[in-house]
Amino acid sequence: MLVEKKDPGLGQPAQERLTIEGIKELRAKAGKLYAPTASYSDSDMFKSPQAYGKPKAKRWDHLLSQESKAREACVLKLAAKHLKKPGLISLGGGLPSAENFPIDSLTMHVPTPPRFTEAETAASGQDVRIGKYDVARGENGGVYDLSIAMNYGQSVGSAQLLRWVTEHTELVHRGLPYSDWRCALTIGSTGALEQALRMFCDRARNDAILTEEYSFSTALETTAPLGIKVFGVKMDGQGLLPGDMDEILSSWDEKARGARKPTVLYTVPSGQNPTGATQSEQRRRDIYAVCQKHDVFILEDEPYYFLQMQPYTGPNTPAVPSPATVEEFLDGLVPSLLTMDVDGRVMRLDSFSKVVVPGSRIGWITASEQIVERYIRHAECCSQGPSGISQILMYKLVDETWGHEGYLKWLMHLRLEYTRRRDTILAACEKHLPRDIVSWVPPAAGMFLWLKVDHTKHPQASSKSILEIEEAIFNTCIDKGVLAIRGSWFRAERDHAPSGLFFRTTFAAASEAAMDAAIERFGAAVRENFAATA
Amino acid sequence: MLVEKKDPGLGQPAQERLTIEGIKELRAKAGKLYAPTASYSDSDMFKSPQAYGKPKAKRWDHLLSQESKAREACVLKLAAKHLKKPGLISLGGGLPSAENFPIDSLTMHVPTPPRFTEAETAASGQDVRIGKYDVARGENGGVYDLSIAMNYGQSVGSAQLLRWVTEHTELVHRGLPYSDWRCALTIGSTGALEQALRMFCDRARNDAILTEEYSFSTALETTAPLGIKVFGVKMDGQGLLPGDMDEILSSWDEKARGARKPTVLYTVPSGQNPTGATQSEQRRRDIYAVCQKHDVFILEDEPYYFLQMQPYTGPNTPAVPSPATVEEFLDGLVPSLLTMDVDGRVMRLDSFSKVVVPGSRIGWITASEQIVERYIRHAECCSQGPSGISQILMYKLVDETWGHEGYLKWLMHLRLEYTRRRDTILAACEKHLPRDIVSWVPPAAGMFLWLKVDHTKHPQASSKSILEIEEAIFNTCIDKGVLAIRGSWFRAERDHAPSGLFFRTTFAAASEAAMDAAIERFGAAVRENFAATA
Repeated sequence: MLVEKKDPGLGQPAQERLTIEGIKELRAKAGKLYAPTASYSDSDMFKSPQAYGKPKAKRWDHLLSQESKAREACVLKLAAKHLKKPGLISLGGGLPSAENFPIDSLTMHVPTPPRFTEAETAASGQDVRIGKYDVARGENGGVYDLSIAMNYGQSVGSAQLLRWVTEHTELVHRGLPYSDWRCALTIGSTGALEQALRMFCDRARNDAILTEEYSFSTALETTAPLGIKVFGVKMDGQGLLPGDMDEILSSWDEKARGARKPTVLYTVPSGQNPTGATQSEQRRRDIYAVCQKHDVFILEDEPYYFLQMQPYTGPNTPAVPSPATVEEFLDGLVPSLLTMDVDGRVMRLDSFSKVVVPGSRIGWITASEQIVERYIRHAECCSQGPSGISQILMYKLVDETWGHEGYLKWLMHLRLEYTRRRDTILAACEKHLPRDIVSWVPPAAGMFLWLKVDHTKHPQASSKSILEIEEAIFNTCIDKGVLAIRGSWFRAERDHAPSGLFFRTTFAAASEAAMDAAIERFGAAVRENFAATA
Repeated sequence: MLVEKKDPGLGQPAQERLTIEGIKELRAKAGKLYAPTASYSDSDMFKSPQAYGKPKAKRWDHLLSQESKAREACVLKLAAKHLKKPGLISLGGGLPSAENFPIDSLTMHVPTPPRFTEAETAASGQDVRIGKYDVARGENGGVYDLSIAMNYGQSVGSAQLLRWVTEHTELVHRGLPYSDWRCALTIGSTGALEQALRMFCDRARNDAILTEEYSFSTALETTAPLGIKVFGVKMDGQGLLPGDMDEILSSWDEKARGARKPTVLYTVPSGQNPTGATQSEQRRRDIYAVCQKHDVFILEDEPYYFLQMQPYTGPNTPAVPSPATVEEFLDGLVPSLLTMDVDGRVMRLDSFSKVVVPGSRIGWITASEQIVERYIRHAECCSQGPSGISQILMYKLVDETWGHEGYLKWLMHLRLEYTRRRDTILAACEKHLPRDIVSWVPPAAGMFLWLKVDHTKHPQASSKSILEIEEAIFNTCIDKGVLAIRGSWFRAERDHAPSGLFFRTTFAAASEAAMDAAIERFGAAVRENFAATA
């Protein structure tokens, strides 16, 4: 996997990059954050001065759907501007009084960086306490409390967590090439994807999107009912092939395809689900160039971005030294499409699901001001933003308790956890799988290993379809006690016959001993199916 | 306000109704709930045997949108059925391992029923502790823990909270008239409404809905961008007028109206936003009959249902004795449309926002199996259900700590809190408002007082429009230091001139002293505007 990083800042001098120290200075200068119940906030309140020395993003009016263009600002939220008037008494918003919130305090026990394991958390973790009136009383940090978190909030998210997310985004994607980027919290990337699709695609316009030929099944199930057609782009071990994408778009025949030329690419650049493929920096640049050429907007879905692992060196070889500092860790990450996005044609989807907990139902998007504004207008009429309870716990953890450095150390810890798990499944594959039939690319990121089964070697290859062989192997797997997911379930174009035979396995969930047994069973199932029957 | 309740069970003998004791017996019989990470569950697992002795709901295929009909089951969730096989090792779902969840335990401090005030909570509240592995370790109840709540879950909600919600629904809406009703958790009623609109309405079909002539502005803003037209039904002090609704539907002219005859009614029966009107039992029966006559599906949005207050008796009169028992409390509630729903044509939207905390972002719907199934198929591709962190806190509070009886006592406590607040604002109105110009109906539920200003008495009534007078009063109010919301912002048909001049005020948020001052300022603003200028 190519993970070298030459110039993530696109020519920007290194000294201009925002650092953890720089964030501390900015916060000190800004003074204590005052953000009471349902406060308005946006990323511009938290971006560094460096972020503004670039041109603005392009406008996307010509791509927006009828639905998105029709959204107007919430009339009650407009009235909120009067709340700033000193001495004004509001009989306006129907917000319950915090005195009627029956949770008085919350305390969570969390690890102290860098001692992140469960045993270390039990031994040296800390209790983080959150009271109802911490802001008024100046207690427990005095910035965010239950009276705020448990009431209604803004759909963009609380100012407290939005500040952290904005800073984190600037820290990681150093030097975004346009100035008017913003973040907004989401209820997770599945919901954010649905909103994005409704923002850019119209059933009535006969819109279509492009994605990897094998793609996240829930994303496909989100797209289809909206009347949006999905077309798959061929892949190799580094994921989506820009040449094939260019070819598809250059030769687009609306009539033959039954859909308008796609204006949206949905891609998972790192540890793609289901293939585990990670796009190299050059691959990303090439994909971006094709999107520029055909004026395609990019939905960059990156739940596994921070699950980029140590390079795989093979069994019984010395491990590559892990990053020694958070700077080294950040330098080692493949640059995001966001860092290459001179046009502002990327909406990046981040999520806490894979790197903290899925049950928080919190993620965030980063995109141009225009796109984020349209997104928030929609969120005000559907999710209204993520759970305030989740937000305050996440804020207390990643901001007040860990800080940016502690959080990056947590990600470095996870990197090694996932490296170990990946190496375990790869060792099991090398031990148990028939190498003449089953092949794989060691994943550089994520939680999936994509196993390619050479169906041409099957004794009934000429009479049985790939789907039939796949189903037979799947059933034998279940009989033998292992669940691996059928590759055909991920086809972007479900009505087309698959070109190959694949199974998706994950190394995220099962214990390491169980993974070895599971791969052994999978190998036995393949061998049984490929044995010439008498 | 008519809040008498004659026969909420529709003729069902009282002994068949589910009681709190009955729930305890059912739970004892069912044994300890076992619902590990991402368990499937549905209300049928938790309904009482009494719930099944009724006919099934009607089918609604003829009303469903193209989008809703196209939804298919999630392919990865289908694979989950194999997980039941003993000894099977899953390399299937990409669920992170709980060992990588950095929150080890949560503790919340909550009141002990019936001592619910903040002072009582501080003095006699209890600490509720939640560990990561409580289920495996048999600790802290052993039914629901952080390893489950912080991982992915089912979109219908966790079995633990769904059980409570199902039981609560059966307890409150005693004797639903059809058997195949179900509940599903939501991320709040705004999101649930958007999903419902996408389920029943099609832009391409030129669909329309009916609602109160003054309606919740966010609901209107949710509807409009979907290309769904909204038509308002006239109201009186008891809300929507069934006669006007019948008249609108009977005389529907698709061409003149520019939309198909409405197939959906969106209504807030109790403490309607913005008018504060509460439909009596007879009013609800009459509305239901009109919906049957015209085959209209009902979205019953009831965030304020449990904010039904004590009857208003006027200033300096003895208070009506409050309900002595939870049974008396339940008997005093106006029956829901759900209890009248022989066809299964109601989707009821409930929410914890107004009665526990808005920041949980948890509510639930109740409807027929067909409708709930379509709803969940959509939720799997957008919200994926509410935050697991919110779910476990809410479960621990309302189920394990309070139980059904404790929760009903909490609602009884809130009833008196809101009664006191309402009586405060009404006393202020009687003291400070010019009764010859401003009039109101004392609200029987909710958090809003709707003030009608007689614009015909304005000195420039013949030359100024209602909107102009409304704007002038609003601005004077801001000058004098009070924010009251302009009635015209809630018009269902925004392009039509309003028929009257109204302001919405809330008694939920401001302190009781501030409310008196605010109403005094409002009165002064009205007087100033209505004073004949020389």
